[in-house]
Formats: sequence, structure tokens, C-alpha cells
Amino acid sequence: PMYSATGLDVWTMMNQVAASVGAVNLGQGFMSYPPKDFIRQAAQDALVENTHNQYAPPRGRPGLLEQVAVRFSERLGRDIDSGSEVSVHAGANEALLSVFTAFLEHGQDHEVILMEPAFDQYTPNVAMAGGIPVYVPLRVRDGCDAATHDISSDDWRLDMAELEAAITPKTRIIVLNTPHNPIGKVFTRDELALIGAVAECHNLLIVADEVYEHLTFGRNHVSIATLPRMWERTVTVGSAGKLFGVTGWRVGWAVGPAALIRPTLAAHTRIVFTSNTPLQEGVASALRQAAHNGFFTIQCEEYLRRRNRLIAIFADIGLPCVVPDGAYYLLVNASAVRARIPTDYAFPDFITERGANFKLVYFFIKEFGVSGIPPTEFYSDAHKDLANDYIRFAFCKTEEGLEAAAERLQTLK
Amino acid sequence: PMYSATGLDVWTMMNQVAASVGAVNLGQGFMSYPPKDFIRQAAQDALVENTHNQYAPPRGRPGLLEQVAVRFSERLGRDIDSGSEVSVHAGANEALLSVFTAFLEHGQDHEVILMEPAFDQYTPNVAMAGGIPVYVPLRVRDGCDAATHDISSDDWRLDMAELEAAITPKTRIIVLNTPHNPIGKVFTRDELALIGAVAECHNLLIVADEVYEHLTFGRNHVSIATLPRMWERTVTVGSAGKLFGVTGWRVGWAVGPAALIRPTLAAHTRIVFTSNTPLQEGVASALRQAAHNGFFTIQCEEYLRRRNRLIAIFADIGLPCVVPDGAYYLLVNASAVRARIPTDYAFPDFITERGANFKLVYFFIKEFGVSGIPPTEFYSDAHKDLANDYIRFAFCKTEEGLEAAAERLQTLK
Ligand SMILES: CSCCC(=O)C(=O)O
Ligand SMILES: CSCCC(=O)C(=O)O
Repeated sequence: PMYSATGLDVWTMMNQVAASVGAVNLGQGFMSYPPKDFIRQAAQDALVENTHNQYAPPRGRPGLLEQVAVRFSERLGRDIDSGSEVSVHAGANEALLSVFTAFLEHGQDHEVILMEPAFDQYTPNVAMAGGIPVYVPLRVRDGCDAATHDISSDDWRLDMAELEAAITPKTRIIVLNTPHNPIGKVFTRDELALIGAVAECHNLLIVADEVYEHLTFGRNHVSIATLPRMWERTVTVGSAGKLFGVTGWRVGWAVGPAALIRPTLAAHTRIVFTSNTPLQEGVASALRQAAHNGFFTIQCEEYLRRRNRLIAIFADIGLPCVVPDGAYYLLVNASAVRARIPTDYAFPDFITERGANFKLVYFFIKEFGVSGIPPTEFYSDAHKDLANDYIRFAFCKTEEGLEAAAERLQTLK
Repeated sequence: PMYSATGLDVWTMMNQVAASVGAVNLGQGFMSYPPKDFIRQAAQDALVENTHNQYAPPRGRPGLLEQVAVRFSERLGRDIDSGSEVSVHAGANEALLSVFTAFLEHGQDHEVILMEPAFDQYTPNVAMAGGIPVYVPLRVRDGCDAATHDISSDDWRLDMAELEAAITPKTRIIVLNTPHNPIGKVFTRDELALIGAVAECHNLLIVADEVYEHLTFGRNHVSIATLPRMWERTVTVGSAGKLFGVTGWRVGWAVGPAALIRPTLAAHTRIVFTSNTPLQEGVASALRQAAHNGFFTIQCEEYLRRRNRLIAIFADIGLPCVVPDGAYYLLVNASAVRARIPTDYAFPDFITERGANFKLVYFFIKEFGVSGIPPTEFYSDAHKDLANDYIRFAFCKTEEGLEAAAERLQTLK
């Protein structure tokens, strides 16, 4: 649906629930700490130049296009052209909407494969562009007991037979998210090759949402576009907000062959005309500096420490989790908490109407003062039950925030 | 069309033509001078706060919502509620797309009245939301000889019988642009009352694009939403880029009753999620300061001087114009120039295929080194001829720029 019955997206809703009890907010994935000085300074410096305060070309500022091209060229092993194979967007979200708008048509029943859990903006973005989402859930491997033991994000697998079965003559696009939000799964080269083979066989476009590309823990991120023959059918989406911990800057990009970027750019030009100029220039400068100052390595180490601390906090109170190999979210299995919900607990209507998982998350926030996100929001009705027991917590938060959460959670012991 | 045969929007195309001959660029409406220090400083200061680098609520940062509400409340003569009657957007363009997306439906043949010339993004934005544009041209009053004499922007009139005739049971929205781009017409209270009466009679929504609200020359801007009974059916769109001369900041807003803003905000949340935070905060601070430092008055005087200078420059070479009462564009009647185009002049295909007006503008830029925009881009095919003789020049440019243009245009004497 375009919007829920309350008119609120899940992020605004859960931020409000969190604020209502002064909860430690581990819900929405924004940083509770400032960006590094060189990043902020890059944006401040950009504002001084007049050209950096006026319209950017719809495709983006040349300096940023160039930096994005360089970064992706390294991964691809050959040069890509910043003038035709990159476009800058008003955040990765608008990049995705632009791709969908470019390649789907209203009234044609074009289908788009979404793997569940699927980031909550995918469904409305596909629908706005006239597409029909078709859901294929990732499933936990047989033999894992996720309710009592930690499992790995890699234990969540795509059943290739299920993927194949979901494809019809109307299918146009497969959306792939790696590293995956909220699971933290980093798809392996082998997994990507299988997905790529399906796309090739049915002549599908791949939309690769790789906004967490820079955050993997002991695994390599692989861009599906770098696999043989995949470049030509893939649009890869990235995000400066995620790369640099500035989620409010709204600068994202799309990378792909000119034949795919041209219509994507045309859609972008009509959706927002162009992305904001000063922060594009700030990001360009930050990317230039980060190529030499070790920022990405240091940042990854910081996230790894935070991840491990959050896992330990939940281990301490006996709640198992899905250990993420990437991104900055932790799925915690809170089935043990459900038993504690009094049968007469008073839930507001806007929670009750969203089902068992929203009730669990609401109860958790209200009673323990630590907020998370209900992952069923990332599911279609048919598969919601797969996530009923989970709560997603974000660890892009200060150590003080994590420790404050730890302390509040002692009551759960 | 979503995009032209060249894949280029008119702005990028004409910027490229201008750059190819090093023309003085009076085409696209961006400022060729820096914003005032207090504006730039407001944005630089915002970047220092961490919360100003992370996601804003989709509706917008509270400080900006408040300032927009205060500004509009003054005009309306009563307080509006910043928490329900305002939404912040990624530029006015995205505000318009959000309104269209909220109130039009694909497959329903919903019609939207656009007055021509109609800003070139309206048509694709309506179409993306599933609407069908229906065009009603503004026409020059009988008895004006625009080819030989200056006329007033007020000589362009909406024929109310033509408007009435364009309305069908499928009509949902009237889009109104005042002050008008590119004519510079500032609709009078009487004209607005007539349009409002039609909207009321047919129960239509009014989308009022008032991004040039702050730039009128000896006339008052009237918001149609302030007329009796109009508030409830009107969404008014504004732009920080235009208000403060920072077109690259991409911060716009929509104001209206909660019942209209709620679905607009829901669409916005899915289109871009939220607008960039640091520049929202910068704009909030700039609005607070501008309420006391006389900025808007000074700015208006500066624009009036530039307007008068540009009119004089064209008068000097014998080209009459449409004297604008608002905004920062000048329509010049260049029919006298057409006679100078050699019959064998070599036009590139991407110009020839767009018709006589594009050829005139292209010739003008190439031969005289001053660039403008072909206003037929603001017309449907049926009415293009009404603008064949005009070129639009922008005067949001430095005095040096205007004088450089004057010098180049001497060859036309
Ligand atoms: C659209 S809010 C997104 C923030 C985020 O990426 C997340 O928390 O999953
Ligand atoms: C979409 S570019 C717009 C700039 C502008 O408003 C104009 O020049 O008309």
C-alpha cells in the first residue's frame, strides 16, 4: 500500500513510539554520532563556491560522477565512463524509483521479483512505476534452531527452485540487496552466479541495491555487475548517506551500461530534476579523501566492534540473533519475550492491526525502553509469519547508546 | 514525452548549446552570483550539528515546517498548523509530483488543466502520476502588436470560456502558476476569483505553483488559497531555491489543509523518503533571519534593476518584450531575427525536429553569443505556434553578465 492506515511509514511510527517512552533508539538506521570532521568539512567548503549552490546537471556534478566511476571501475577491473554510465540521485531510494520508472510500464502487468525480507520502500516504488511485486522469501536452512541458538546471516538462503517458479513471461526485473537489510547476508559469488544465470536465461534486468557495500565483516562484498555478462543487464545503486554516515544528505547514485542509465536519468530528471548540489560536491571531496585516508577500513572496524557488542548484549539476556556478515542491523529472535506479554496488554489500534510482530516490537519498546523495527514490515502478507519472532536493531549507534540499551535490558534477565 | 529524442531535457540541451559557443548564459533560471553570506552561513552552521546530518522526518525538520507555516499564516491571516498543514519536499518539482501522485490514479483518465505556457516539468509529472494533461493557452489580448511593441505580462489572459470548455467529468486538478514562468504574469485577485469559482463549481483541486511569490514588481502577489473558500481545495507549492537564490539546494514545500497534505506527504515519503536535512536547517535559519533583515525587499529591488536593464538592452536593438510583473524571466519577441536566418543555415537534427522556435533560439545563441530558452518547450503541439517568435531570457544574472550580453547584441543593431 502507498501508506498505512495511520498514514505513517514504519520509520516515523516507530520513532514516535520510541520517543513516547524515551527509549534508546536502535530502530531506524541513522547514526547517533557525528560524521568524521573531514566529511562535514567537505560539505561546508562546498557551500562557499557559487556554482555549488545552483542546479547541478540532472546527471550529477562531474566531480562526483568521476569519483563514483573510479570506485566502481576498481571493482569491475576496467574503466567505466562517468559521462554515460553513472547518474546521481536524491538518495538511493530515488535511484531505485527512477530505475523502476524507466523500465516498467503501467497497464502492462510487469512483474518484479523481490526477495523477502524486502526493504519497505521497494513495494510502493515498484507499484508507483506500474509494476507488480512478486515475492520470493529467503528461508532459514533446515536444521537451524533460530529460536534458541545464534545462526549466521548466511543460513538465510534463496531457494533457486522457488525463484525459478516465480518467474513468468511478465517478469522484467529481479531486485537484489547485498549486503542485505535487515538480515546482514552478504551474497556469495556462487549465489550471485545462480541468480545471474536466471536473469540471463529469462532476459531480466537486475537492480542491485548495494548501499551497504562498504560494510562487511570478514567477507568480501561482490557486485553482481562484475560477474561475467552481468554488467550489461545490471543497474547497481549506491548511497553516500550510508558510505559516510550522513543519512540526511540524500545523495545516491546508479551505475550501469549507458543503455540502462540513459532512461534511468530521464526518469530522475522528471522525478526531482536534480539532486542537491552542495552535498554532491561534499561527497565528491569526501570520496577523494577517503581513497587515501583509510576511512573505510577504520569505519568497518568500528562497526565490527559495535556489532559484536550488540550481539553480546543480547546473548547476555538469552536472546539469540542472526549474526550479520554485513550492513548495520541485527535481527534478534525474541520469541522468548512473547510469552511475557500479558494477555490483557493494551495495544493501540495502529499496532494491533499490523499483526503479531508489531505487537511484540511495541511491547518490547514500551516495557524495556529499547526500540527496534518490526521486520514483518519487510514482508508481504503471505510470508509475514517467517519474521514474526524477530526484532531488528541497528548498531550504527554510539557505544554509550549501546551500553544504555544493555543496562535497560538487564530487566529481561 | 518522458524525454526527448536526444534523451536531453531542454535545460541540459540549451546549456550545452550555450557552452559550445561560450555564450553569455541567460537561459536556465539559476543565479550567476553567490547567495548572500547569511544564507550560505546558515547552511554551513547547520552541518555542525549531528542531527542535521541524519534523516529528517519525511514531513520535514520541525524548524523549517514552523517557518513555512509562519510565512503562509501571515498571508492567510490566521495560523496554520506546521505539524499537519505543511510538508517539505526535495524541491518544488518533487512537491508537485507528490501532489499529482496523491490525487491522480493510473487507468482512470483523470484530467489536469495546465495553462500554457506550462513549465516543462508539469506534463511529464502529471503523466507519471497517471493523469492526462489538458491544455488551455493564455492568449495575448486583442489589439496588442507584440511583434513591434512592448506589451505587459498582464496582456496575457486566460479566456474563461476556454477554461470552462476544457473541463469534463474526468477533470481533477487545475494547475495555476503565479507569478508565471515564463510570462511573468502576476494573476490579479479578480482573475484568481474567477478561476477559483470554476474550481469550486466543478469540485476541483487547485495546485498553486507560487515559487516566485517573493518577486513582483509594483504588484502584489496573491495566493489563491487566501481567497474565500479556496484554502480547503488548494495545495500551494513554494521553493527555498527561488526564495534565496540557491537553486541547487533542492528544498521546497507544500502548504494546504491536512486532508490534502496527508496524502501528499505519503507520496513524498515513497518518492524520496525525505529531503536533505542540512539544507532544510539552513533554510529554516535563513527564513528566521530574513523575517527581520530586510532581505526580501532588497532582493526584489535588485531584480527590478536587472529586469529594467535587460528590457533596455533589447529595446536598444529593437526587439520588443513582454514586460514581466513578477519572476525573473523576460520573453523577447524575436520575429525580426527570423528574417536573418540564411535559408541554408545548418541546424543539427536535434534542433530541427523540435520546430521553428528551437531553430530561432539556436540561431540566436550561435550567432549572437547570448543564450535563452525556446518557450515552445512549455507548449503542447496544438498551441506551439503561439510562442514561435519568442525567446525567454533570465535576469537572475550579474550586472556584468547582462552588460556582456548587451555588448554582444550590438551586432544585431
Ligand atoms: C527509509 S528509512 C531507512 C533507514 C534504513 O535504511 C533502515 O533503517 O532500514
Ligand atoms: C528545471 S530547470 C528550471 C529552472 C527554471 O525554473 C527555469 O529556468 O525555468
